[in-house]
Amino acid sequence: MNAITKIGQDAALGMLEKLSGWNYADQRSGMIKRDFKFKDFNQAFGFMTRIALLAEKLNHHPEWSNVYNQVSITLTTHDAGGLSAKDFELAALIDEIFCSD
Amino acid sequence: MNAITKIGQDAALGMLEKLSGWNYADQRSGMIKRDFKFKDFNQAFGFMTRIALLAEKLNHHPEWSNVYNQVSITLTTHDAGGLSAKDFELAALIDEIFCSD
Amino acid sequence: MNAITKIGQDAALGMLEKLSGWNYADQRSGMIKRDFKFKDFNQAFGFMTRIALLAEKLNHHPEWSNVYNQVSITLTTHDAGGLSAKDFELAALIDEIFCSD
Amino acid sequence: MNAITKIGQDAALGMLEKLSGWNYADQRSGMIKRDFKFKDFNQAFGFMTRIALLAEKLNHHPEWSNVYNQVSITLTTHDAGGLSAKDFELAALIDEIFCSD
Repeated sequence: MNAITKIGQDAALGMLEKLSGWNYADQRSGMIKRDFKFKDFNQAFGFMTRIALLAEKLNHHPEWSNVYNQVSITLTTHDAGGLSAKDFELAALIDEIFCSD
Repeated sequence: MNAITKIGQDAALGMLEKLSGWNYADQRSGMIKRDFKFKDFNQAFGFMTRIALLAEKLNHHPEWSNVYNQVSITLTTHDAGGLSAKDFELAALIDEIFCSD
Repeated sequence: MNAITKIGQDAALGMLEKLSGWNYADQRSGMIKRDFKFKDFNQAFGFMTRIALLAEKLNHHPEWSNVYNQVSITLTTHDAGGLSAKDFELAALIDEIFCSD
Repeated sequence: MNAITKIGQDAALGMLEKLSGWNYADQRSGMIKRDFKFKDFNQAFGFMTRIALLAEKLNHHPEWSNVYNQVSITLTTHDAGGLSAKDFELAALIDEIFCSD
């Protein structure tokens, strides 16, 4: 499967179930989302920097927002018109970074 | 004027006019906003890191989002229930960093 | 005690003993140092970003170097001509960030 | 030429001449170095973050140090036992980021 092939809704739902904390932000257009909460801004932005480094390495970037100790990350693959393997790969690596913090 | 005293709408409008690029996101609740565009994610996140350092120094943090080369910043002062001098100070310093990039 | 008052060698040695991992880089000139090791560059630079945010907040900056997953931090207070309370405060906060990662 | 093939001293000298500001840190072991100076720590660390993102993307990392507004970067390719094309590629991109700041 090509990294940017769109994943159908049934397959995506199955993959989503394995990612605790991630949910559909918008099922129709194919976007998944997770909210993260930290102790303070320092910890939140340290996390964001690690995700930024990862995104550049994978050449796949999140749509994200931050308010003080809260970070919301939305993933989708514009070139695929929905979710692709890249989104699930990035989501799993984001979770790994979150848990190692 | 205390840094977290709420600035009235008339005074705020006058201060806002001096900040090119910043507009009311929500005039009633007192939030100002500016959108920034960069060459790529690298430049956008370099800018975000500089704003993060500034926010920690001033102990005043933005509500912001990023999609690849675009950054949107919203400022308000929760403790003031609207706009305060801190927002205009941070906005001016953000513009200075943006222009020096 | 003023934050930038130089701490004498005897007092400094006592404070240093409480900071596991920190040692004199140069006892005569008053510099303390600790080496940190991480899983990879991503984790090392996430840590560095958190220290950078902290340094701006405290207005006290480290002398530091990085090679892939290794970070070396040296602290001293130029204005005091040696170690001051600021160095021990920053060292303790750096350790707190390191342990929470 | 493979990206990690060692570049001989004569060829390296020719390539080095085209990079203004970079010099041999240690000619025998094959390391090039450049010192950068910024307005303040904020600008210096914004630059470092952009270099960090670039390094992860290229999977080629600098040996570097920072003291307030100064950043020193040393490049070498351990797998090549000296300088490789990767070092000159990274040096040129670092200069591009420095000049766009």
